[in-house]
Amino acid sequence: MSTLGIIAGGGELPHAVAQSVAGSGRKLHILALRGIADEGWLAAYPHEWMGVGELGRSLKLLAAAGAKDLILVGQVDRPAFSEIKLDARGLTMLPSLIAAARKGDDALMKTISDFYAREGFAVLTAADAAPGLVTGEGPLGKLAPDAGQMEDIKRAFAIVRALGAEDVGQAAIVCEGLPLCVEAAEGTDAMIARVATLRKNLRGTPENKRGVLVKALKPMQDRKTDLPVIGVNTVRGAHAVGLAGIALEAGVSLIVDKTAVAAAADRLGLFVTGIRL
Amino acid sequence: MSTLGIIAGGGELPHAVAQSVAGSGRKLHILALRGIADEGWLAAYPHEWMGVGELGRSLKLLAAAGAKDLILVGQVDRPAFSEIKLDARGLTMLPSLIAAARKGDDALMKTISDFYAREGFAVLTAADAAPGLVTGEGPLGKLAPDAGQMEDIKRAFAIVRALGAEDVGQAAIVCEGLPLCVEAAEGTDAMIARVATLRKNLRGTPENKRGVLVKALKPMQDRKTDLPVIGVNTVRGAHAVGLAGIALEAGVSLIVDKTAVAAAADRLGLFVTGIRL
Repeated sequence: MSTLGIIAGGGELPHAVAQSVAGSGRKLHILALRGIADEGWLAAYPHEWMGVGELGRSLKLLAAAGAKDLILVGQVDRPAFSEIKLDARGLTMLPSLIAAARKGDDALMKTISDFYAREGFAVLTAADAAPGLVTGEGPLGKLAPDAGQMEDIKRAFAIVRALGAEDVGQAAIVCEGLPLCVEAAEGTDAMIARVATLRKNLRGTPENKRGVLVKALKPMQDRKTDLPVIGVNTVRGAHAVGLAGIALEAGVSLIVDKTAVAAAADRLGLFVTGIRL
Repeated sequence: MSTLGIIAGGGELPHAVAQSVAGSGRKLHILALRGIADEGWLAAYPHEWMGVGELGRSLKLLAAAGAKDLILVGQVDRPAFSEIKLDARGLTMLPSLIAAARKGDDALMKTISDFYAREGFAVLTAADAAPGLVTGEGPLGKLAPDAGQMEDIKRAFAIVRALGAEDVGQAAIVCEGLPLCVEAAEGTDAMIARVATLRKNLRGTPENKRGVLVKALKPMQDRKTDLPVIGVNTVRGAHAVGLAGIALEAGVSLIVDKTAVAAAADRLGLFVTGIRL
């Protein structure tokens, strides 16, 4: 297999993918997005920094590294186009990037991934490259949702699907039939934290847990980028606001460090489960 | 016309409706929900207090007042059923109320409004009873949305419709193609305030306004209760977080004090407009 190129955004997912790929024995080469990727973990891997507008330079760096397969992974907050430094290739792409951005985040990511595909790269998903991170069906830890919680999970899935069709968010929280929070630009962690601001009779507490968080793929989402992901921090956040558990779309959602997530879920008394609906 | 019965929840809408009805010369009789309705404005109108579980007593009070038409108006946060004091009629309704509550707020409100309809009341909407509050088509103040803002308005409408079909919320905020916030249990004011927590390049400021708030009816919503409503506070909140304007579904959304809303919008530099899509 050729070297895997990884264009790395923010968050802990790029590190988890790199670990998983390196652990499988495959060579990798990371292009870390300047000002976006976390610096801490990169020293252990072959890497270079690139600006988000340096599309031409990224092609040269990937070619020099012998990468034919590529993944785009990690959070990239939508930049202000006026502040991006563009190289010549970036400049030619600018009109289509701006047009795509008006349609939504997915359209924007698809335009970027299509650019690399046209340049001859096989653009893989993080799930393809690191199958060990993919959520399986059923509970990860000791706890599982009860019948009432399964109803809330189904309700939240339906909400995420309806929202996803409008390219809004990937996550929702439902408690005993009532939708508490729906994710848009604030991100999942901020959405979870918001539960604590709601009236007490609508929600649970760490001692008396109620309500479920669901993360799922948008139905029209380009599966190459921005897969739903959770980690230990998500479990801690859900516990802090009194949620009973987390359900993820099996087969497409990612879990960073399954062992640690299962241990945190068991210790804090939440379920974390993979669902196919 | 018979006396209009008004079962009044919280917020400023019940007062606005009572003013409008009284101004039209019709007699009215208010049943104010204890612990929920605002006390300040009630003294000027014939009224009594009732608990949310006193369904039987409400029938007697309405009959004594000679009311045959009825509206249910104002916010009623979903109560903890275990804390409601129920009279005999309330008790017989409890199982269907609990079942409806699991389906969503609209189902719950429809069950209550159907109860009064079965008892012989004509259950009107606040829009029927106070047509002066209904949003018309076009701008209310001096400003109107430009072409880009109209695109955002259409996008936000599509999101509210998709969410409404799942009985989630009535409001969304979109800025230059990006959905910033979607309303669930937190309410519109809290959703608007959240814009200020987002990264600065995603949103506007009071000096450089960007993004629009849309409120619209849920497509499956029982039109008898919980119509979308804004007032001067909504305009102030939207200004504080740098939104460019507010678009409401014309013909069904309500505006409390149109004169004051138009003046606030003009003073703060926002548009407030009614849209039919």
